[in-house]
Formats: sequence, structure tokens, C-alpha cells
Amino acid sequence: MKRREFIKGLGAGALVTGGALGAVSQAQAKSTIKWKMVTTWPKNFPGLGTGANLLAKLITEMSGGRLRVKVYGAKELVPAFEVFDAVSRGTAEMGHGAAYYWKGKSEAAQFFSTVPFGMTAQEMNGWMYYGDGLKLWRELYDGFGLVPAPAGNTGVQMGGWFNKQINSVDDLKGLKMRIPGLGGEVLRRAGGTPVNLPGGELFTSLKSGAIDATEWVNPYNDLAFGLFKAAKYYYYPGFHEPGTTLEAIINKEALQTLPKDLQSIVLNACKVVNQEMLAEYTARNPAALRTLVEKHKVDIRSYPDDVLATLRRYSEEVVTELAAKDAFSKKVFDSYSAFLKGSREWGGISNLSYLMARDKV
Amino acid sequence: MKRREFIKGLGAGALVTGGALGAVSQAQAKSTIKWKMVTTWPKNFPGLGTGANLLAKLITEMSGGRLRVKVYGAKELVPAFEVFDAVSRGTAEMGHGAAYYWKGKSEAAQFFSTVPFGMTAQEMNGWMYYGDGLKLWRELYDGFGLVPAPAGNTGVQMGGWFNKQINSVDDLKGLKMRIPGLGGEVLRRAGGTPVNLPGGELFTSLKSGAIDATEWVNPYNDLAFGLFKAAKYYYYPGFHEPGTTLEAIINKEALQTLPKDLQSIVLNACKVVNQEMLAEYTARNPAALRTLVEKHKVDIRSYPDDVLATLRRYSEEVVTELAAKDAFSKKVFDSYSAFLKGSREWGGISNLSYLMARDKV
Repeated sequence: MKRREFIKGLGAGALVTGGALGAVSQAQAKSTIKWKMVTTWPKNFPGLGTGANLLAKLITEMSGGRLRVKVYGAKELVPAFEVFDAVSRGTAEMGHGAAYYWKGKSEAAQFFSTVPFGMTAQEMNGWMYYGDGLKLWRELYDGFGLVPAPAGNTGVQMGGWFNKQINSVDDLKGLKMRIPGLGGEVLRRAGGTPVNLPGGELFTSLKSGAIDATEWVNPYNDLAFGLFKAAKYYYYPGFHEPGTTLEAIINKEALQTLPKDLQSIVLNACKVVNQEMLAEYTARNPAALRTLVEKHKVDIRSYPDDVLATLRRYSEEVVTELAAKDAFSKKVFDSYSAFLKGSREWGGISNLSYLMARDKV
Repeated sequence: MKRREFIKGLGAGALVTGGALGAVSQAQAKSTIKWKMVTTWPKNFPGLGTGANLLAKLITEMSGGRLRVKVYGAKELVPAFEVFDAVSRGTAEMGHGAAYYWKGKSEAAQFFSTVPFGMTAQEMNGWMYYGDGLKLWRELYDGFGLVPAPAGNTGVQMGGWFNKQINSVDDLKGLKMRIPGLGGEVLRRAGGTPVNLPGGELFTSLKSGAIDATEWVNPYNDLAFGLFKAAKYYYYPGFHEPGTTLEAIINKEALQTLPKDLQSIVLNACKVVNQEMLAEYTARNPAALRTLVEKHKVDIRSYPDDVLATLRRYSEEVVTELAAKDAFSKKVFDSYSAFLKGSREWGGISNLSYLMARDKV
């Protein structure tokens, strides 16, 4: 027996009954549980992929090595958009992605990632943990044998990369843009053609002209993909993704067969990553933004007010229609809308009021 | 040897040599470690005190009961403002409070809670986890045998409760107000008299006229203290506390004697609570705000722009002078200021730009 294994055994507390020390060692060695985590991101992709890596690391570390999680990038075990099914059928015990990728399974899933002109990261966390958000999300995924958890947030995203200026709503007409989820539907109503592609395919699609524009995440992530080499104009704010929640999905049966302490470790590790990823973006976006502007001469522009007003009108249409699609979507919409209403009232005299005071003086 | 010392020995890897399983088993059975957590809050106080309770619960749960933490409210074991010393000398293994209470130990401590016109909760987390914030904080507290960790955030606070309107800076003159830390010094420069009192003494002090005004936290907390019964005007934004980080402090020796997995559990539980508390405030402030306005007829007002501009000027003075007090304060100030500069650039085109677009349409 190696010295390190014995020390681990001491920490595990699983073997309080008698027996020879050799038996302890053997049982301990067997008690290492191995999980696979499939992800929708390129392996080790900054922020998103490394967030998934951190989740695996935390689970392994807090469990003292009793539960070890190995991360697979998109296409390593399954393609990006098959993560949901893979975890549902137990090919992997965990997954990391974003709920709006699964609107084909349920339209309501989109509420659990992000909604155009909807909640920020801070508000999403409020709704998830202290409103009905996570409860409803679990109810939905339970039908697929999955347990979801918020596991990362990008914060307010950027509006996207364009090869021409957006000076009016007319400039969106005919635009073939990679923009998933509800934001894509908003673009459609504005006359554009939304396309859904995994992150790994954005650069070549934009560069080749297969798409005219793309949104991805924020300066830190967009710099990593080199999108500035394929488009000149970088618009803000990301009205369509004001605080995108990334998801961990866990195979329900796999989770339930764990001892209680490991279940708690898995779910709390998701909470840690949920906060850490937002902190990482908050810390790393400023330098990336400066690099894009100063080194790569990217032209940063805000959407004109009247464009935002129009997009806001379409957003309300899209979300209202989504709520009418089925009873569950209506239930989620009602909860989301009520929470957002309170958040806007309180946020108006806290976050917004403060940021305006800090900015203008 | 006392039982607790023996248990600590286990964690420290003191027993890596062989022996019969009987010895292991017996040691395992005894291996429940008991910690005390002293807090600066009234026991079970909503948000702050319950956040400390959650921290204890998470550690107990994730450790499978191997490490059990019992929470004490202010005055139960030690008074609110003796929490730092109590954990430093090992009377309790953990504490929960806010770093600006310890400016008597080190002026620089204040940067790790909140700075007038400084960082929001999201920005503080960026600085703490992915900037130098937490590293510097640990460096400072190491001299006291303590390990600090962010363990809760109130978000942007309210400006405070007043018995008269604040229409100009002159209205602050002569005002005796409970406002701790750097915000208190800002008030002093505006002609007021800052007072520091623990939360539990606010209501009676304001009601009796011992103080003229007080800030505390936000609607959820202020409603719980019944402050609306002692003052009529409730001002925003809380320029002096834009994202107050609460702290967990851990006795360094106690932490180091834990096995690695328990150390990770303790520190990650702090991270979970850091996020959860902000989520709780975000979820519960809206209803509390409505209750204050609709049921208790509180008069909610924003500080006039010119008052905020003056307070901003004094804030810059105060923070700049703080940085000049000692070499360590200067180092923390430089790190804080550089991070804030980047946050304002990026935040201007993300959070602020988005909230303005959401608000005005």
C-alpha cells in the first residue's frame, strides 16, 4: 500500500467497522468512483471549458479523491449538441453546456439559460436559488432522468461581430447570423436569418462568408477564437444574452447512488463554479477588451437606441409566444416575469442607480 | 492528551504508520471534529446571520459530519467587535463578519469589505478570485494567524434612514449617523459625525435620538430591524457600500490541521455562501421594498446629483489618504484601483449599458 492511499483512507470515514488493515486498503481502493463529464465546448476553451475543468477538479478535491471526474471536450466522446442525450442515457454521468441548446427537447429550457432583455447574472442567481427557477428547471429535466444545476455565468454578453455597421433595423435585414435560442428568433423577426452553430465552428463560418455575423460571448472568449480576424465591428450590449447561465447536468440515477456527502459535494461544486466563472469573466474581459481595441483596432459600437427599442419589442413578442406554447412554458414564464418585475424595481434603485452615479461623476 | 488534540493529530497525517485496524476504526469513530463559529450578527439575523448558519450547515453536510460547526451570535460567546481577536487566539476556530470592522488592526482591511464609489459585488468577486484581492487579504491576515475568505455579499446597499430630507450637502452637516468604515470618514468630511455601532443596537439608538440617522444594509435587512419605525426617509444609492463583501475568518492553525479534503470543503463552502447571500438579497429585497413603501409608507428618495458629486469627491480624498497610511495599504490601493479602472471600462459597455437599455425601453 502506498502511503498516500492510506492517508486518503483515513479521511474517508467509510470503514469504521473492524477487519485487518489490508482489507481497509483494498476496499478504499475500490471505493473510487469514476465519472465522465461531456461538454459542448472545445476542450479547455477559456472560461467555458476551463469552468468545466474546475468543476471536475473541485469534486475530486472535496471528495478526497473518492469521486473522480474526467472532462471530455465536444466531439471527444459525443458531439456538442448530443451532450443532453448522452447524459440522459448514462453514456456520461455529467455534462456541461447551456440549456438553450435543448429547446428541441422543450421550448421552456431556454428560460433557464437566458432571455432577451431579461435577467442579469445576479438576478438569475436570485431566481434560481431563492425563487422558483431551479425548482422548475429540475421539474423539467426530471422527465429526462437528469438533474440540472447552474454552473457558470458569462455576465452581460456582447452583441456580436458584424462586417458592416448596424445603423438602423434595416441593416439587420437579410443578415445570416449565428445566434442561438430566443435571440435568434428576435433576429428572424427583424428580418435576419438565425443560425445555430457550436462555438468551435464560428471562426471558419464567419471567415468563409457562410455566415455574415456572429455573436459568441464576451471579449475574453471572442479574443480566444480570433473573431476580430473575421469581422471589424463589435456591437454592445448583448441584449439577447444579459446573463447567460451555463448548466451542469447530472444523470439522476448516478447522483442518487452516491452517498449523501458526495451528492452535496457535486451540487455545491456546481455552485462554486457558477460564481467563479462570472468572476473570471469580470476579471479577464477588461484586458481582452483593451487588446481588441488597441492591438487589433476593433471598432466597438453601441446599437443605436431605436434599434434596441425595436429589438426589445420583438423580444417581448417572442417570449410571450413562447409562454403560450405549452402549460409548462407558461408556468416558467409566469415565475420568470414576476421575478424580473421585482428585480427591475429594486435594481433600479440599487445596481442601475449606483452604476449611473459612479459613471457620471 | 485531550480528545480534540488527538483528533487534530489524525488530520495532520500524524498516523501514517501501520497498526491494527482496530486503532483506525476507533480513531475514525472519534474523528468528528467540532468547531465554533463566532459572528458579529445577532443570532439568526436574516441574510447575514442565516448566511453564517448556511456556511456551518454546508461544511457539516459536505464533510459527511466529520467536521461540525456550531454558530454563535454576537454576545453569545464574545461581543460583535471581538470576533477577530477571538478567532485569532483560537477561542473559536471560525468567525463571520466584515473586514471594515477591523480597521483598528489595519486600515487596509477596509478595502476587503467595501469602498465608497468602488466595486460592485460582481467586481469584488472578480478582484478577489481572479485578481490579487484575496491574495493580499490573506497576506494581511496571516500576521494575525487568520485565513480570510469572502463569505457573502449584500450587493449595492441603501444610503440610509434619515429623519429629515437631504436636499443639499448642508443637510449632512451636524448629522450624527451610524456609518462604519470609509463611508463614515466621507460623512465626517461632509460635516457629519460618524458613529460605529453593531447592528443589534441601531434601532434603539435611532429611536432614542442618540443618533440622527443610520445606514444598515438593504430593504430585506432594514425591514427586519424595523428601522422604518424610527425614521421616515430612506435614501439611495448606498454610494458608501456598493457591494459589501462579508468575511469568514478561519484560525490558520485549525485549518492547517484538517485533512486536505476538509480544508477544501471549508474554503469552498465559503464560496458557496458568498454567492448564496447575494442571491438571497436579490430575491428578497423586492418584496421588502414593496412592504416598506406600501404598508409602512416609507418615503424612498434618491440623493440629489450634486450631493452625490460632493460625496464622490470626498470619497476619492479618503481612499487616496488611506493609501498613503502605510506601504501595505498602498499596495492594496494600487491593486484595487487598477482593477476598478478596467471594471469601469468593461462594465460601461456591459452591465451599465444593458441596464440602461432594459430600463428605458
